[in-house]
Amino acid sequence: MAGNSFGNIFKLTTFGESHGVAIGGIIDGCPAGLQLNIEAIQTELNRRKPGQSEIVTQRKEPDAVNFLSGIFEGKTTGTPIGFIIENANQKSKDYSHIKDTFRPSHADYTYQEKYGTRDYRGGGRSSARETACRVVAGAIAKQLLKDVKIQAFTSSVGNIKITKSYQELDLDLVEANAVRCPDSAIAEEMISKIKAIRKEGDTIGGVVSCVIQNAPKGLGEPVFDKLHADLGKAMLSINAVKGFEYGSGFDGTKMKGSQHNDLFNEDGSTKSNLSGGIQGGISNGMDIYFNVAFKPVATIMQKQDTIDKDGSIIEMQGKGRHDPCVVPRAVPIVEAMAALVLADYFLLNKISKL
Amino acid sequence: MAGNSFGNIFKLTTFGESHGVAIGGIIDGCPAGLQLNIEAIQTELNRRKPGQSEIVTQRKEPDAVNFLSGIFEGKTTGTPIGFIIENANQKSKDYSHIKDTFRPSHADYTYQEKYGTRDYRGGGRSSARETACRVVAGAIAKQLLKDVKIQAFTSSVGNIKITKSYQELDLDLVEANAVRCPDSAIAEEMISKIKAIRKEGDTIGGVVSCVIQNAPKGLGEPVFDKLHADLGKAMLSINAVKGFEYGSGFDGTKMKGSQHNDLFNEDGSTKSNLSGGIQGGISNGMDIYFNVAFKPVATIMQKQDTIDKDGSIIEMQGKGRHDPCVVPRAVPIVEAMAALVLADYFLLNKISKL
Amino acid sequence: MAGNSFGNIFKLTTFGESHGVAIGGIIDGCPAGLQLNIEAIQTELNRRKPGQSEIVTQRKEPDAVNFLSGIFEGKTTGTPIGFIIENANQKSKDYSHIKDTFRPSHADYTYQEKYGTRDYRGGGRSSARETACRVVAGAIAKQLLKDVKIQAFTSSVGNIKITKSYQELDLDLVEANAVRCPDSAIAEEMISKIKAIRKEGDTIGGVVSCVIQNAPKGLGEPVFDKLHADLGKAMLSINAVKGFEYGSGFDGTKMKGSQHNDLFNEDGSTKSNLSGGIQGGISNGMDIYFNVAFKPVATIMQKQDTIDKDGSIIEMQGKGRHDPCVVPRAVPIVEAMAALVLADYFLLNKISKL
Amino acid sequence: MAGNSFGNIFKLTTFGESHGVAIGGIIDGCPAGLQLNIEAIQTELNRRKPGQSEIVTQRKEPDAVNFLSGIFEGKTTGTPIGFIIENANQKSKDYSHIKDTFRPSHADYTYQEKYGTRDYRGGGRSSARETACRVVAGAIAKQLLKDVKIQAFTSSVGNIKITKSYQELDLDLVEANAVRCPDSAIAEEMISKIKAIRKEGDTIGGVVSCVIQNAPKGLGEPVFDKLHADLGKAMLSINAVKGFEYGSGFDGTKMKGSQHNDLFNEDGSTKSNLSGGIQGGISNGMDIYFNVAFKPVATIMQKQDTIDKDGSIIEMQGKGRHDPCVVPRAVPIVEAMAALVLADYFLLNKISKL
Repeated sequence: MAGNSFGNIFKLTTFGESHGVAIGGIIDGCPAGLQLNIEAIQTELNRRKPGQSEIVTQRKEPDAVNFLSGIFEGKTTGTPIGFIIENANQKSKDYSHIKDTFRPSHADYTYQEKYGTRDYRGGGRSSARETACRVVAGAIAKQLLKDVKIQAFTSSVGNIKITKSYQELDLDLVEANAVRCPDSAIAEEMISKIKAIRKEGDTIGGVVSCVIQNAPKGLGEPVFDKLHADLGKAMLSINAVKGFEYGSGFDGTKMKGSQHNDLFNEDGSTKSNLSGGIQGGISNGMDIYFNVAFKPVATIMQKQDTIDKDGSIIEMQGKGRHDPCVVPRAVPIVEAMAALVLADYFLLNKISKL
Repeated sequence: MAGNSFGNIFKLTTFGESHGVAIGGIIDGCPAGLQLNIEAIQTELNRRKPGQSEIVTQRKEPDAVNFLSGIFEGKTTGTPIGFIIENANQKSKDYSHIKDTFRPSHADYTYQEKYGTRDYRGGGRSSARETACRVVAGAIAKQLLKDVKIQAFTSSVGNIKITKSYQELDLDLVEANAVRCPDSAIAEEMISKIKAIRKEGDTIGGVVSCVIQNAPKGLGEPVFDKLHADLGKAMLSINAVKGFEYGSGFDGTKMKGSQHNDLFNEDGSTKSNLSGGIQGGISNGMDIYFNVAFKPVATIMQKQDTIDKDGSIIEMQGKGRHDPCVVPRAVPIVEAMAALVLADYFLLNKISKL
Repeated sequence: MAGNSFGNIFKLTTFGESHGVAIGGIIDGCPAGLQLNIEAIQTELNRRKPGQSEIVTQRKEPDAVNFLSGIFEGKTTGTPIGFIIENANQKSKDYSHIKDTFRPSHADYTYQEKYGTRDYRGGGRSSARETACRVVAGAIAKQLLKDVKIQAFTSSVGNIKITKSYQELDLDLVEANAVRCPDSAIAEEMISKIKAIRKEGDTIGGVVSCVIQNAPKGLGEPVFDKLHADLGKAMLSINAVKGFEYGSGFDGTKMKGSQHNDLFNEDGSTKSNLSGGIQGGISNGMDIYFNVAFKPVATIMQKQDTIDKDGSIIEMQGKGRHDPCVVPRAVPIVEAMAALVLADYFLLNKISKL
Repeated sequence: MAGNSFGNIFKLTTFGESHGVAIGGIIDGCPAGLQLNIEAIQTELNRRKPGQSEIVTQRKEPDAVNFLSGIFEGKTTGTPIGFIIENANQKSKDYSHIKDTFRPSHADYTYQEKYGTRDYRGGGRSSARETACRVVAGAIAKQLLKDVKIQAFTSSVGNIKITKSYQELDLDLVEANAVRCPDSAIAEEMISKIKAIRKEGDTIGGVVSCVIQNAPKGLGEPVFDKLHADLGKAMLSINAVKGFEYGSGFDGTKMKGSQHNDLFNEDGSTKSNLSGGIQGGISNGMDIYFNVAFKPVATIMQKQDTIDKDGSIIEMQGKGRHDPCVVPRAVPIVEAMAALVLADYFLLNKISKL
């Protein structure tokens, strides 16, 4: 209810603040008998980790996951999988500059209003550090969905964007560069842009696109729990996300029905796929693809006016090591959330008919 | 679980097929003691009703809501509010042309794959007729949220779009024209466009924008149930929706942090509002605004190739009276879903702190 | 959340007051493709119906169920099954005697305290009339569980009780007499007792026992959702229930482990079954059996002191036609609730392992 | 869904096996601003701890709780409270005797059937060790419910039972003896009995009674989530529980309505309280009281026949240090589960009316 759980059957509940003892979670509802590749889980975490390249935050956090339950002799047992990731940074530095101050476009003010209190150290619960737990659970979901291929990538940074369709790209190149853009020429432009932005002490937004191939037909529960509705919620729940579109998306609003309809082939596949692999909220076996809009990171290394808890205007400037652009590190998070949604509806769909 | 419920506390569950006996629903969790204006509920339904203007489907359905429980002497009692809307069209005409055929970009094929069967009459459960139940519940949610003003409007039809910001518009003019666009000049263009499209036997997409004013601070449960994540899910669960963005949306991805940050006034309000009234998933008291992308209606009055259940290619053409553009009738649905989300988090927020 | 839904996957939500327009419900999550026997559903309702014999209330209510959705050509479609049962008695008689008065050991006082208002006509939502909806849903659950045999019966009325074990009884005789006791000699005593009690203007309690045969192994989710924990909740949610025990029950507390342990046969069945077919919260394939305690009906045809809403002591006496003993009509309700629990965990168990 | 969560708003999710790295949980939905007494939480854990007296298992486990999140400067922040309790015994001894064997009346067989695998060390997830997490969460719930007094006690061990009503007992004496029985003479008999049973290598069952004083009126959601229905589920979810009754319970079935009805005093309290503080599923402000039946522990120090995974009969004998009677250590668990139910409905009731 309080918003720290995700999923119906394959269900993740997370806890933890940025500078508390640890973050962690419980995955409930993973079927028994799944042989887990623990190394593959850590690999996903490493894709999200700070300090992994020169264009992301230079903080050092090992982000090693420790599983506490639910796995026996390498396999899931059907009991809840508990895990923690210790916070290397937990001995707090000086946070007095944000203790009584609300950073612009952060969650400081709203947490204070909602709860009457907040753990201000490093953003507390509102920090994107919490998404590490999603990556852990998503990595397990990926292993459950072993025939499904979920690949996200950076499709734009500021005004620089991929112009090719995803079919024209080699998505296996996503990890070939620091910005996680499979078009190497565009990737270089993006990297230069991010470096320049960082030099300004500023930040920049971008778009992550995601393609899901080989998803089974029948996923999604029509009406309120349409597959794309939950994918949308999943993505919008990631820090800094401002928008979601799938299939033809916002561009589809300009089209006519005669252009937009996806005509069938004899085998039930479709000639075009403006539907984005989902019709009536249910997957149809075609590729599922969508875009996720990320705003620029709110913490900038420039002076800004803001207010303190008494409503007095004060000047503040970001401290520490922050991401100039969140998009490259968001790629594995988008994949993880997509995997959580798919795994959940994959299980649910096993009981949709006799 | 099967996807026919929405909300945590203020919870709507719906049932009903397009051509069954009736559609209806149960609203559970509405607090006791709310004086209901039944006429205002019917008024909202009338805004969604077919046949209301010359640019929407000319089907005639009275869409009268009957309340069966949960209301006593004009007030809610805290017990579930059951209601039904009878289907005037329930005596089915000839549906043999779609019984064994899958209409392109409809849900026929995916329902068949998921359930192994389907009520093919008028789209059955996948028909947008189901959204009438949402409008009923949303109208009650609006009455619960009496100080909150939720106003949606048509902001684009195909390539024709409002260029003014919502602050420059008089949102009280939304009902002044058939297309529900508060800019009367643009509205005329939209209406002409829709008429032309209908003459072609075609359909066209569009965008509905929504503005929520005077929402209390503190709504939304951070992490997975961010306010905008559930608004997004709510909108994406409406038939034909392909995208959702709030605040700066997809345009925000092109901005720098120094441009995008909303600086505070001394009273905690912000000078700009690119955040769209929500920070860290929690409302901050500023206007909440978002855009919802609708694809063109899939049923067109032109011949198209499609397949039958045996995978043979056949030619089909839409029959009956359909909307050339779904957007004008979607406006009250967008408002209803927004009201459901707000009401739910409004109640939940009453227990967020001691 | 507000307590009008039951189940996780196979989920019933009900609405309706005793003297409103209608009661009804929505069954969500019933798999597609189940051929329904509608007559069998009505038969179950008739077992619960008032006026069916000389030892129950003589009110006449047809209790005919009308299905509104979710069924097409005789089969479930996977979409929600909406249904209503009209209230024949809805034109309220004179209820002025309870409008401002709290009947002892009824829910009048607590509803008033909780909600600040109540529909006082015939008990409103607190009336056991609501259980008719459970019987409808339970009858569908029984059809889903076609190989499972769920049989409840009256095992005691006041001090008169069956002394044989259920294995010594022919449970197919339950419907052979008005009190639903499969021991015909005891049944006659019970019937005489109930008649005598009614003549006194009084009421009497009793116990319903239930035996579930042929339940699959593996049902129940250990820890909080143990099979017997949800059976217990299901039974305790029926009006007038004061206790639940399964297997050895309260008598088992007096035993030693060496007496109580159920030793295995080579095929995994057990020589004794004090466990009641459930170990660690999971069904083991043996018979599941349990007892449900019903208090005497609170409405008596004798004068009692009570208070009105202002706290003044007044004298009142029950009016109308009420059950002198609720147990005979509770038998089908107990079966229905058991079926709902079993159906839910039957579906859930399909995804407990790969 | 998989059964490891409890509660609607104040929600506990647990993980952990008896001999894994750690057990733990997440409490979601605790309101912000609650000043926590951590020592009081540990005190509750110590009441459940092995080795605390000569009549319980002599295993030594420190059972120290570590909070990882959700608490800042001594107060809850509204974010999830994560905690772990390390397993001191995690380096497994020799478990080969149960690896391939199903212990009678344990969960070994049913876990194997349900999941196809199991962590057999010390019972794995089916061990009552998991209840330590419930005690942690229950202790926090107690602090939230600061004006409510929840007191459980041992009311019977085998045939030895308290004959006084709870009103005649001084419940503050519960901790005065090892068996947690407030009648000191009966307590001595119980202790002697348990010692004798242990000498036989056997075990014995018993009953825990619980009294809740000063609960607010209005708790419980009528129909399916009646307060006593969720109390019943809570208790039945505790390991070894076979039955639950509240108020007049099973004895109430023998009574007449004229004896059983609780007549009102002018202030809305009742002269008698056979209702057990709950009417129509909603608390009425009177004492809530109930009994919980515990079977004898299944692990006995005597030889028993059982089967191995191949279905061959083999002889086995319990090893290690086990409880001869689970009841004394169950007392704090019963209180904890009661507190969880009360806290949840306490919060929910804040939004039942305008």
